[in-house]
Amino acid sequence: MNYKEILERVMNNVRAEKSLGKLATYIPELGNIDPYKLGVHLSTVNNLDVGSGDNQEKLSIQSIAKVFSLCLAYKMVGESIWKRVDVEPSGNPFNSLVQLEADNGIPRNPFINAGAIVICDILISHLERPKDAFLSFVKEISDNPELTFCQKIADSEKSIGYRNVALCNFIKSLGNIKNEPEEVLDFYFCLCSLEMSCKELAQAFLFLANGGKKVSDEKEILTKSQTKRINALMQTCGFYDESGEFAFEVGLPGKSGVGGGIVAVFPGNYSIAVWSPKLNAKGNSYKGMMFLEMFTTETEASIF
Amino acid sequence: MNYKEILERVMNNVRAEKSLGKLATYIPELGNIDPYKLGVHLSTVNNLDVGSGDNQEKLSIQSIAKVFSLCLAYKMVGESIWKRVDVEPSGNPFNSLVQLEADNGIPRNPFINAGAIVICDILISHLERPKDAFLSFVKEISDNPELTFCQKIADSEKSIGYRNVALCNFIKSLGNIKNEPEEVLDFYFCLCSLEMSCKELAQAFLFLANGGKKVSDEKEILTKSQTKRINALMQTCGFYDESGEFAFEVGLPGKSGVGGGIVAVFPGNYSIAVWSPKLNAKGNSYKGMMFLEMFTTETEASIF
Amino acid sequence: MNYKEILERVMNNVRAEKSLGKLATYIPELGNIDPYKLGVHLSTVNNLDVGSGDNQEKLSIQSIAKVFSLCLAYKMVGESIWKRVDVEPSGNPFNSLVQLEADNGIPRNPFINAGAIVICDILISHLERPKDAFLSFVKEISDNPELTFCQKIADSEKSIGYRNVALCNFIKSLGNIKNEPEEVLDFYFCLCSLEMSCKELAQAFLFLANGGKKVSDEKEILTKSQTKRINALMQTCGFYDESGEFAFEVGLPGKSGVGGGIVAVFPGNYSIAVWSPKLNAKGNSYKGMMFLEMFTTETEASIF
Amino acid sequence: MNYKEILERVMNNVRAEKSLGKLATYIPELGNIDPYKLGVHLSTVNNLDVGSGDNQEKLSIQSIAKVFSLCLAYKMVGESIWKRVDVEPSGNPFNSLVQLEADNGIPRNPFINAGAIVICDILISHLERPKDAFLSFVKEISDNPELTFCQKIADSEKSIGYRNVALCNFIKSLGNIKNEPEEVLDFYFCLCSLEMSCKELAQAFLFLANGGKKVSDEKEILTKSQTKRINALMQTCGFYDESGEFAFEVGLPGKSGVGGGIVAVFPGNYSIAVWSPKLNAKGNSYKGMMFLEMFTTETEASIF
Repeated sequence: MNYKEILERVMNNVRAEKSLGKLATYIPELGNIDPYKLGVHLSTVNNLDVGSGDNQEKLSIQSIAKVFSLCLAYKMVGESIWKRVDVEPSGNPFNSLVQLEADNGIPRNPFINAGAIVICDILISHLERPKDAFLSFVKEISDNPELTFCQKIADSEKSIGYRNVALCNFIKSLGNIKNEPEEVLDFYFCLCSLEMSCKELAQAFLFLANGGKKVSDEKEILTKSQTKRINALMQTCGFYDESGEFAFEVGLPGKSGVGGGIVAVFPGNYSIAVWSPKLNAKGNSYKGMMFLEMFTTETEASIF
Repeated sequence: MNYKEILERVMNNVRAEKSLGKLATYIPELGNIDPYKLGVHLSTVNNLDVGSGDNQEKLSIQSIAKVFSLCLAYKMVGESIWKRVDVEPSGNPFNSLVQLEADNGIPRNPFINAGAIVICDILISHLERPKDAFLSFVKEISDNPELTFCQKIADSEKSIGYRNVALCNFIKSLGNIKNEPEEVLDFYFCLCSLEMSCKELAQAFLFLANGGKKVSDEKEILTKSQTKRINALMQTCGFYDESGEFAFEVGLPGKSGVGGGIVAVFPGNYSIAVWSPKLNAKGNSYKGMMFLEMFTTETEASIF
Repeated sequence: MNYKEILERVMNNVRAEKSLGKLATYIPELGNIDPYKLGVHLSTVNNLDVGSGDNQEKLSIQSIAKVFSLCLAYKMVGESIWKRVDVEPSGNPFNSLVQLEADNGIPRNPFINAGAIVICDILISHLERPKDAFLSFVKEISDNPELTFCQKIADSEKSIGYRNVALCNFIKSLGNIKNEPEEVLDFYFCLCSLEMSCKELAQAFLFLANGGKKVSDEKEILTKSQTKRINALMQTCGFYDESGEFAFEVGLPGKSGVGGGIVAVFPGNYSIAVWSPKLNAKGNSYKGMMFLEMFTTETEASIF
Repeated sequence: MNYKEILERVMNNVRAEKSLGKLATYIPELGNIDPYKLGVHLSTVNNLDVGSGDNQEKLSIQSIAKVFSLCLAYKMVGESIWKRVDVEPSGNPFNSLVQLEADNGIPRNPFINAGAIVICDILISHLERPKDAFLSFVKEISDNPELTFCQKIADSEKSIGYRNVALCNFIKSLGNIKNEPEEVLDFYFCLCSLEMSCKELAQAFLFLANGGKKVSDEKEILTKSQTKRINALMQTCGFYDESGEFAFEVGLPGKSGVGGGIVAVFPGNYSIAVWSPKLNAKGNSYKGMMFLEMFTTETEASIF
C-alpha cells in the first residue's frame, strides 16, 4: 500500500472541496483561528511518517486530550476506574445533564464531558501535581519534550464554562466527584488546552496501533488488553452522538476535538491525525471526517 | 491458529462455569426451552467449519433476524434506507419509546425494535410476498433450503406484544410507517420466529466476514462498502445498551437475540455463533458473552 | 351581581376581538366545523340560566367527556380508582409517552389521554354495557334525555388514532389496562364523540358547583368531599400543560376539549360553558380562554 | 365557624397520631432540630388570631421564603417577570435539571429551586442591597421588626449546595441568569435561612387572604389581580410534585418548606401556618399535611 501517494491524492481532493461547517465560537479564543487550516499526518507501526499541509502547526487538541487522561488513569488505577465511569455510548449530545441524573452520577463513558471530568477527579486523587504528571505522560508517549498547555485557551474556556461548572457540581451532588469542583475543573480546562500538531498527535497515538507499546523504543504504555479496550471505547464513543456515523463511514476507532482535530487508529497498522477547524452540526471537524472517509475508502482497509 | 483446539478448550471452560442469568420468559414459548443448552459453531473464510455441543440444534433466532432483514432491505433499496432509520447507538433500553419521540419517529438504528419494525415496513412496501422473500434470502446466504418460521413462537410473541404494538403505532403516528401497523407487526413477529442452528447461523453470517461475498460460490450478496457498514452497525448497536461493553470485552461486531443466540463476525477471518438460553440483566446470553470474551482472549485477535 | 349584563358585555368584547388560533384538524371531521361559532351559557346554583350566541348548538365535547367518565367511575368504584391513576399535573404535553414509562404505567392524572383511557378500562370492568351506562349518567346529570354520540366523529378519530392505540397498548404492556386495548379504545373514542350544547354542558356541570347535588332535584351525584376533589383536579390538571396559566388567568377549575369547548365551575356559585372552535398553541380554545378571563375579571370573583 | 375550637380539636388529633416521615438531613443544620416540634397558628381577615403548640417558636422557613421573594419581585417589576419564569406545574421532582434543559432555561414556575434562583437574580438586578431590602419587605408585611436570617443555616446549606450550584450555572449557561452565579446563590441561601414562627408566618401571609392589602393598616402590598395570581400559583405549584395531592386533599393554596413548615391561604377568610419537622417522601411536612387536611375537612370549607 503506498500510503504517501494516497494521502496526497485524498488531501488534494479534500482541499478542493467547499469548506462547510462553522468554527467552535462558544470558546471565544477558538473563534480567532484561521478557519482554512488543513493538515494531516500519518505514522505507521513500520516507521513510515508522512504528512501534508499544516501538519506541523499546533492546534488546540481539546477533547482529544480525554484519550490521554483516560490512558494515564487506566495505567495508574487499573480496572477499578470502570466503577466510576461506564463504557457505553451515550446516545445524547455531549454535554447532556439529563442522562447523568438517570444514571445516578455514573457518566456513560469517559469521552463525554461528564466522564472526562470524573477521570480528572480520579487523577487528582492519585497524583500530587496532576498537571505536570499529565504533561509528562503525553511528552513520553509522543517522544516530544516540547509540549505546553495554552493558558489563554484555558482561561477563555473557564470564563464561559458555566455548563461544565454545572456538570461537575451536579456529579459532586450525586457523589461521584471526590475533590472540590473548582480544582477538578481547573485541571479539566487546563488539559483541554494542550497544543499539539497533527504530527505530534499521530505519534502520540501510535502505541494504540501497536498493541500498547511505543514503536520507537518498544516501551509498554498499556497492556494488549487495555489497548484493545481503549480502541473499542474510541470506536463506540469517540464522536459524541456521531460515533455510529464515524464507525459507519470511516470504520476506525478515533477521537475528535472542537479545535477541529481528529485522530484515528488502525490497530496493527497506523495512527493518523487530521486538522480542519470548521465543525459540522454535531461538533466534529467537517473536512476531517471527509478526509478520513476518503482515506479508508481509497486504502480499502478498515477494521470492518 | 488452531481454532478447533481453542474452541474446544473455551467450550470446556464455559461449560464448567455456573450458569447464571434467566430465561426470557416474557415470550411464553421461550420459557419452555431447556436452559442448559450450549452450542457453538465457527466458520472461516478458509472453509474451516468446527462446532461443539448443541451446535446443530435449532434455536429461536429472534433479534438476530434483524441483521438478515436489514441486509435484504439494504440490498434492495440502497442508501436511501438511512433516511428512515439512523445509524447511532441508542444509549437506552432496547424498546424505549422516549427517544423515538425526541427523534420524530426516526429510530436510532435498525437493531432496536423500533428500527427493525421500520425495516419491515420498507420490505413490505418493496416486496409482494415479504415472508417468502425473506425466507428465500436467508436460505440463499446459508446455502440451506430447510429453514422455517415457527408459527407457535410468532403467535406467542404476538399474544403479549403490546409494547411492540405501541411502538409501531407510535411510529405510524409520527409518519415513519407507511403500511398498516397490523401487517407490519405480523411480518416482524414472523421473522423473529425463524429457527436456525448455530451451524446455520455461522454459515449465514460468513459473507459478512468475506467482504460481502459468499464463501461457497463467491456470489456477491452486498458490496464491500455495504458489508463494512453492516459490520460497523453491529459493532456500535448490536447489543442494545450493552453494545459498548461487548466491543470492550469481545471486540467483534455481532448481534444477539433473546433466544440466547449470539453471532459475531471477524472481518477477513470468521463468523461464529454461540447459543446458551439464559440471559444477563441487559438481555444478552450470559454464557454466550462469556464464551466470546474467552475466545477472543485465547485467540489474541479482535478488530481492535 | 348582574351576571346576565356582564356576560353580554364580555360576549360583545370577545366577539369584536380577532379570531386567532387554529381548528384541531388532526381529527379530520373536526376540521369541517365553522371556525367562527361562538357561544356561552351560565347556570347558577340559584337557578339563573343565561346564554348568548351559539349556546344551544351542539359541539363535539371531546376531552370534556373525561370529567363525566371520571365522575361515573369515582361514584361507582370510590377511592380505589386512585391506585390506577394519580392526581398530579403532568407538566408535559397531553399525549406524552415519556412520563408514562417513568411512572410505570400509572398516568399522572385522569385528564391526560393516558389517564382517561385507564378510567375507560375501569368502567368497562364494572359495567355490562359501558356506552349505554355512560350516556345514561350524562343524561341524568344534565336532566336531558336527548344526548347522543356522533359515530362519524368517533370513526374519524379512530381512523387516525395511532397515537392513542400506542398509548393504550403501552399502558397494557405496563400492566395497568385489564381489558383488550381495542375494546377500551372503542369506548374511549365513543365517549369523546358525545355532542352537547353550551347550555347542556353548563347544566351537566352544575352539580359540581353545588357540593355534588343536582340543583333541579337535590339528588346527590357525588359526596361533598368527592366533589371538592374533582374540582381540585380540574384546577390543577384540566388544561394539559396550560393548567397553571388557566388557574393564573381565570382562577376557576375547568376542563377544555379540542372541539373548542371549555367548561368552568365556581364552587358555590355557578358553572359556565364557552365554545369557540379555534385553538391556541396548547390545544385550548383561544376565545374560550379569553372569555373566561374577562368574565372573572369583570365579576371580580374567582376561587383565589 | 368556631375556628379556635376546631383548631384545638384537630391539634389534639394530630398530636395523637404517630409521627412518621424523616427530618431533612441533607442540610446538616436542619438535622439538629427536635423532630417532635408541633405548632399551628391561624389569622383571619376579621382579626381573629389563634395558635396552639410551638406556634411562637422560630423555624427555618426555607422554601416558604420563595413566596416572599416572588411577591417582592412582582411588586417591583410587574408582569415582565413572567418572561423569565413560567407559571406551570413542573410535574417533576423539585430540583430536576432535565426539564430546564428542555425548556431552554425558563424554569417552570417560581417555586421550584430553578425558578426561585431566577427570581433572586431579578431582585439582585433591581436592588442595591437585596438582602436588606428583602428583610425589610418581610418585616413590613408581618408588622414585625424582629426578623433575622440565620447565618449558620445559610452556611450549612451552602456547604453542601452542589446541586444548586449546578442549577444556577446551568441556567446561566442557558442565558437566564444575568448576575454572577456566586452572588445569586449567596442571596438564595440567605433568604432560605430566614427564621419565623408559625404566628409570624400566618401574619405575613394574611394579605394574600385579604385581596392584597394588609389587614392591620389596609396598606396595599399587591393588587387584587396580582394577589389572585400568587394564590393560583401556590395552588398549582406550591408543593413540588405533590401539588395535585395538596389541592386534592386540602383544597387551599399554600407553600411548604423543608424545615417542616407549611402556610396555606383561604382567600377572603384566613391564613394558617403549621410546623412539624418530619417530612414525607416528597419533602413536605408529614403532620403539617395531615393537620391541614383535617382542618379543611372539619371546617367543611375550602376553595373548591
